[in-house]
Amino acid sequence: MIILGIDPGTARTGFGIIKKTKDKNKLKTIDYGCITTDSTLSDGKRLKIINDELNKLIKKYQPDILTVENVYFFKNLKTAMPVSQAKGVILLTAAKKKIPVYEFTPLQVKMTIVGYGRADKKQIQKIVKVLLNLKEVPRPDDAADALAIAICCAYSLRELDSP
Amino acid sequence: MIILGIDPGTARTGFGIIKKTKDKNKLKTIDYGCITTDSTLSDGKRLKIINDELNKLIKKYQPDILTVENVYFFKNLKTAMPVSQAKGVILLTAAKKKIPVYEFTPLQVKMTIVGYGRADKKQIQKIVKVLLNLKEVPRPDDAADALAIAICCAYSLRELDSP
Repeated sequence: MIILGIDPGTARTGFGIIKKTKDKNKLKTIDYGCITTDSTLSDGKRLKIINDELNKLIKKYQPDILTVENVYFFKNLKTAMPVSQAKGVILLTAAKKKIPVYEFTPLQVKMTIVGYGRADKKQIQKIVKVLLNLKEVPRPDDAADALAIAICCAYSLRELDSP
Repeated sequence: MIILGIDPGTARTGFGIIKKTKDKNKLKTIDYGCITTDSTLSDGKRLKIINDELNKLIKKYQPDILTVENVYFFKNLKTAMPVSQAKGVILLTAAKKKIPVYEFTPLQVKMTIVGYGRADKKQIQKIVKVLLNLKEVPRPDDAADALAIAICCAYSLRELDSP
């Protein structure tokens, strides 16, 4: 099963693609990175780049599931708008391709990966590196966050799979 | 010139289509209404309905311009997310069809239509009725808001047109 995790944003949308192997304790990293868009472009053009790049990733890796953070509360209202606009485009893209979407709150991601809801960003990133058996902490942060939610989704589905 | 005004929302997206005739003081109402989506559907499916319905309107009326409110500050964070998700989809839809988008703040809409930034919703709606020569105040509110921003856009462009 291939899981595509997304950390949405109009300026930077992180993605992380992992595979849940038959040996249920193993997760394999397939790809990760960040879709960046130029701030001189209109919002519509930036969102179209995100849509186009996401479609390319979907075509290339054929994910079975897309997963994204479910953020209800934003610290900063100025980030709520560009994040939600990008998330709208991501949810639309998945719906058009009929890919099921699973959402997890930031707390669920932390609890699932670290078992500790107050873990900080750096701790999460180091644990992502360990869980995915990577040589280095994934960069940029957006990609690491996207991998974190993909791992959270894989673990949550594993629980659902269990008899 | 045909202008498509949009009042975005995941549950309800209002639309208003007007034509700016050669006689620059005349605005003609072409259509208005509201795209509603069922709350039992996933966000992705709801956004796909908005995308599909908007594409139908664009195909039918061939608007030259799409206009939407530029809201930076939300009274309520819970509305910021569904409104911005829908707006992201609307901006993407316009970008894919290469339709230019003009954004106006709620204050610009009020000032342009009423010349008074503190005008309330009911006053705006009555003035929309007068300016478009409608028999009744347009319903629902989402459609009236969409017509208001379309009028604001038409008036603002008229100023840009002037020698």
